[in-house]
Amino acid sequence: MFEQLGLIGCGLMGGSFALALKRAGLVKRVVGYSKSPSTTERARQMGVIDVEAPSALLAVSGADIVLVAVPVAATEATLKAIRHLVSRDMLIMDVGSTKRDVIDSARRVLRDNVGSFVPCHPIAGKEVSGVEHADPDLYAGKQVIITPIERTQVAQLSRAVELWKALDCTVVQMAPEAHDAAFAAVSHLPHLIAFALVNGIASQEQREAFLSLAGPGFRDFTRIAASDPKVWRDILLANRQELLAQSQVFQRTLQSMEAMIEAGSGDALEQSIAQASDIRSRWRLGSRKA
Amino acid sequence: MFEQLGLIGCGLMGGSFALALKRAGLVKRVVGYSKSPSTTERARQMGVIDVEAPSALLAVSGADIVLVAVPVAATEATLKAIRHLVSRDMLIMDVGSTKRDVIDSARRVLRDNVGSFVPCHPIAGKEVSGVEHADPDLYAGKQVIITPIERTQVAQLSRAVELWKALDCTVVQMAPEAHDAAFAAVSHLPHLIAFALVNGIASQEQREAFLSLAGPGFRDFTRIAASDPKVWRDILLANRQELLAQSQVFQRTLQSMEAMIEAGSGDALEQSIAQASDIRSRWRLGSRKA
Repeated sequence: MFEQLGLIGCGLMGGSFALALKRAGLVKRVVGYSKSPSTTERARQMGVIDVEAPSALLAVSGADIVLVAVPVAATEATLKAIRHLVSRDMLIMDVGSTKRDVIDSARRVLRDNVGSFVPCHPIAGKEVSGVEHADPDLYAGKQVIITPIERTQVAQLSRAVELWKALDCTVVQMAPEAHDAAFAAVSHLPHLIAFALVNGIASQEQREAFLSLAGPGFRDFTRIAASDPKVWRDILLANRQELLAQSQVFQRTLQSMEAMIEAGSGDALEQSIAQASDIRSRWRLGSRKA
Repeated sequence: MFEQLGLIGCGLMGGSFALALKRAGLVKRVVGYSKSPSTTERARQMGVIDVEAPSALLAVSGADIVLVAVPVAATEATLKAIRHLVSRDMLIMDVGSTKRDVIDSARRVLRDNVGSFVPCHPIAGKEVSGVEHADPDLYAGKQVIITPIERTQVAQLSRAVELWKALDCTVVQMAPEAHDAAFAAVSHLPHLIAFALVNGIASQEQREAFLSLAGPGFRDFTRIAASDPKVWRDILLANRQELLAQSQVFQRTLQSMEAMIEAGSGDALEQSIAQASDIRSRWRLGSRKA
């Protein structure tokens, strides 16, 4: 049980966390801050936060738990804004989709207090953003990846683990590097591809005719293309090395399949599709077995 | 109202069509044939068809409507097998995802009777195949593209249009070439990309760890990667020219976004993502306005 959550960033991720924590009875009071005052105000009107803070620093004042839920590139500035009130007893978490850059920022800014910071990445989201889509069920049943570093305090780590478990999440611990490589492959690259596919269609004269004919396959494949531009700009830039490496693997695979198509190699093509189809058919969301 | 449907191919697409036609009271009797006798038997046991035919030709015997629902590359052999019983009064349709190759086959095989053949492509499907997934609602509310040629008989065309409308479909007529270009962009390329993405992950040592961490974005993006290998081998080969052209547009777009990422051009990248996000947010399934 926490006394006060300092929520920095009252958007979809932060707002949903506050709602989930409140519903579970795990926090008494939520003090929130967003860069845009209208977001903070809407969050209060919706009951996502109890008190509006005029700055990130004031949102942290009196908090025993802090959630930084801002686009990853804003993490460093956010930590700088609050560092004077960060204490050893506080639990600070983030929800960023990349971990190495966030941890680098935390080391640089928090220094001796970096042990209070537990880097988290809940595998949850929607293609819509903003506090108006905040949902207390957003995290339920989802995986949360925690990437502690050697200086993370054991006490804060176990409080973070218990908290996410209490929200019905499955907690997975791994190294920040392993996290970033995996998410480049299964999340960041699919987003980049979805953006590029839609933009490629948009670059053609027949774009309206094409889009009007698209079916359920297109709908699901491109759902993530509707994601928030600022959030994804930051993620793609923050994890660029792993992302570009994964994109090379993908393009090589695509080009080898194109060569089969060009050569009319039906058997090889069928085998290649069958491999993908088999893997994808057996895959289940949130299963620890691939 | 039809007397007898000759169904060639009792899988997901054909089986769902038979069920929909029966439920709408549009056909008295369904005679079915599948290449695999066990499929035909299961279709009869499930009530998808009323009578099992031992050959495609016998499925057509006595039929006033014929649906060819086989992988597109099997269309020509199927039409050859039935051509001796094809008459001018019969309505023959297919459900293939490519239209130029199917029409070429129909011209070659049916010759003077090609006017009975109405090329159709219902924009409906599931990532699972087989008669056990046949569903009378599969086509309801979906678009059906009809690509008549100059020799198509007006009477057969209007019967086909009325039939699909009676199944609650929106019918769109267009030229076969326009159809194939559009579906290369919005369907065939997304499938090829999804297959390549999964195979690219599978080619890496950490594949199991990667897949175990994948979330809802990956789930939706790769849903079509679980599609039937034979069906998609045929589609990708049949429409290879348009598909490879679309893949070039996509790869150029992807590489230009990669260049922004590599150069750290945040503004350009955000603008590019915003364009995709905006288009995809405004897009609606089955809407004739893009």
